[in-house]
Amino acid sequence: IEAGNGEDIDMLMEPLHAADIADFLEQIEPHERRDLLEIWKGGLDGEILSEIEDNVREEILGYLTPQELTEAVRELESDDVVDLVEYLDEDQQEAVLELLGPMDRVAVEKALAYPEESAGRLMQVETVRAPQHWTVGEMIDFLRAHPDELPDQFYHVILVDPRMKPVGNVTLGRLMSSRRDVKLFDIKEEMFTTIPAEQDEGEVAYAFNQYHLISAPVVDEDGRLVGVITIDDAMIVLAEENAEDLLRLAGVGENTVNDRVVTTTRQRFPWLAVNLVTAILASLVISLFEDVIAGLVALAVLMPIVASMGGNAGTQSLTVAVRAIATKDLTGSNVLRVIRREVLVGLINGLIFAVVMGIIGILWFGEPLLGVVIAAAMVINLVIAGLAGTVIPVVLEKLGIDPALASGAFVTTVTDVVGFFAFLGLAAVVLL
Amino acid sequence: IEAGNGEDIDMLMEPLHAADIADFLEQIEPHERRDLLEIWKGGLDGEILSEIEDNVREEILGYLTPQELTEAVRELESDDVVDLVEYLDEDQQEAVLELLGPMDRVAVEKALAYPEESAGRLMQVETVRAPQHWTVGEMIDFLRAHPDELPDQFYHVILVDPRMKPVGNVTLGRLMSSRRDVKLFDIKEEMFTTIPAEQDEGEVAYAFNQYHLISAPVVDEDGRLVGVITIDDAMIVLAEENAEDLLRLAGVGENTVNDRVVTTTRQRFPWLAVNLVTAILASLVISLFEDVIAGLVALAVLMPIVASMGGNAGTQSLTVAVRAIATKDLTGSNVLRVIRREVLVGLINGLIFAVVMGIIGILWFGEPLLGVVIAAAMVINLVIAGLAGTVIPVVLEKLGIDPALASGAFVTTVTDVVGFFAFLGLAAVVLL
Repeated sequence: IEAGNGEDIDMLMEPLHAADIADFLEQIEPHERRDLLEIWKGGLDGEILSEIEDNVREEILGYLTPQELTEAVRELESDDVVDLVEYLDEDQQEAVLELLGPMDRVAVEKALAYPEESAGRLMQVETVRAPQHWTVGEMIDFLRAHPDELPDQFYHVILVDPRMKPVGNVTLGRLMSSRRDVKLFDIKEEMFTTIPAEQDEGEVAYAFNQYHLISAPVVDEDGRLVGVITIDDAMIVLAEENAEDLLRLAGVGENTVNDRVVTTTRQRFPWLAVNLVTAILASLVISLFEDVIAGLVALAVLMPIVASMGGNAGTQSLTVAVRAIATKDLTGSNVLRVIRREVLVGLINGLIFAVVMGIIGILWFGEPLLGVVIAAAMVINLVIAGLAGTVIPVVLEKLGIDPALASGAFVTTVTDVVGFFAFLGLAAVVLL
Repeated sequence: IEAGNGEDIDMLMEPLHAADIADFLEQIEPHERRDLLEIWKGGLDGEILSEIEDNVREEILGYLTPQELTEAVRELESDDVVDLVEYLDEDQQEAVLELLGPMDRVAVEKALAYPEESAGRLMQVETVRAPQHWTVGEMIDFLRAHPDELPDQFYHVILVDPRMKPVGNVTLGRLMSSRRDVKLFDIKEEMFTTIPAEQDEGEVAYAFNQYHLISAPVVDEDGRLVGVITIDDAMIVLAEENAEDLLRLAGVGENTVNDRVVTTTRQRFPWLAVNLVTAILASLVISLFEDVIAGLVALAVLMPIVASMGGNAGTQSLTVAVRAIATKDLTGSNVLRVIRREVLVGLINGLIFAVVMGIIGILWFGEPLLGVVIAAAMVINLVIAGLAGTVIPVVLEKLGIDPALASGAFVTTVTDVVGFFAFLGLAAVVLL
């Protein structure tokens, strides 16, 4: 295929959806990508570029001249253009903006003035709006008169007052099924929410999901209409935010399988470094008890079990807590109840595993007291795991630190330290 | 508030969105919930019930008679009714179905005939469709003549052939901005996807997200139109699937902060039990080297560091791999490249931390060879972590086992066993 010519590739790509072409471009080797684009640059359109993930897109944009890029983005709506140019360096950005038509340029520049990851960057400036006193007939005539200025997809007509403040949404379904003389104001939807342009895109996605919005007008600080966000954009943000939480919990920033070795190594390093520090802390606890271990090596054999069970129970609690914080299900009103529940769950599971592990300890090493020690340490550590797994994310959130990112290190430090200390400390008291 | 009467509560609840009332009901204590509903049962409507999470909803449904429930669901569309009744026990389900109108009953029964978590359960049977030969004018007249039969929200008119097979979608925007004499067939969308009713809802959500669908017709095995799925339903499924992956990776089934202690304990238990087995496996490896540890207790102090670093690196790799499998970014075509990358990343980070840890080992214990041993073990374990963290989820997926659920246990077993074995084994050879 690589040896073939542009037309062959065109034929292969033609039946594919832009999103699938993007996936294909992501999954081939970088040098294959370069060779392919060498002969097939013209086939790239804005839609494909929009679908490609950031790091690969950056690489591809490097192969394109500003003219080629402008050609590709001309058909896109303003939010997609913003999405493409926001990560270009300033020179490239300027070059592309100059080549856009003046209308588009103003729209894109306006959006770029809003902070990154805000509603202003997410919205499209193309809106379908009407004065609130219009009738169904006037609206339909207006739409028929301006078919070329309408966005590809729109779901509501936004009613605005004379100062351009949105006052309501009319769904296209209601509009179409109403008689021409009905006033738009009389068929507007009951629920109506506007989104401030400065709002964080995560909050926007939450609102769409919580209130089942389809599209919502975006307003500036004076409450005037500046754009509209639609559910498909919110869905993408929601999926991204969920992925971020997942990856952050595992200590891998925004890593994808298509990142390069250097990038990946650098992204994984900080979390491993944090883990090294916490592991050394745990080792320091162990070193307090070197004499005890020297006296009974079985302790060294069994101690990782207590720490590992605590670490797992802590991760369970913290994952549920981080998730609940993200979905606003863990709030001031139920935090005490959740903590109480986690501690109780830790206690019950701790007791069960204490019995199991106590028996194993006795059978394995023939030392009843060793069984008692490991059982007691297990209960202590699972209770602490439930407590730390909930309290730590809640406190981090209160301090303005992302709980998904930082909770893991703290919680496992606590369960390692407590696990080793409880087990070896009890052993020192009881066995020696 | 609890002491107050129904009207006071009505006043407090009135300005709230159904989703927020649902959140409120989830977050109060069970006995508060019972007392509140005692006096405010009439205020519950189907929309609120739809928003409440499963376990709390089950509790609330227990307080309602079939009549009250039927009253509440009457206003809902078929997909939401299905969502409410599908988890009732058979007697209750039958009682509610009998009280529904015959049209609604047939629709709900049809949907219930599809497997759980399939497109058939997710879809609403209320569709807006038109014969493919209709014009814009005919369509608008039809919609105006039947305003009461239209779903609350719809985004497309589905064109069907005489055998009710969908042949295309017309967006309402195109419909409204076209002249009355234009044929619907001529303004249908370029991209058109139908969804088989048997398809898993996760696949449906993936398709909506990948292809930016807004609504898509659902077809039976003969390709005939049976319903429609809209993006808001797909968004809910997508959020649920993402949450499931996150929770499964941490070994907590479908746990939420509102579950009860018994439920939570039972859900967390299996994963902890698996972890106990793997921890014991690791301990067995350690016990092979009891003599070595007895000879040099410093080994017991340092060995958890090697295992912990491997566990963390493995979790990083497996999280990225599980995520990529879920989003179909990790496929046959790039799996070898991803494995190579993960191994390389493990090697580079392993070498860096080996140097750091080697120096710490020497400084701490004044024993150069101990530094060399821990450094070598670190490199080995981080390379194995990268390999296992990618290969294990890929293999599990191939075997039809959910990688999110099972990878963690396997990967940490590998990194624990390899970590302890490499460190203690090398120590036995080099130091004694």
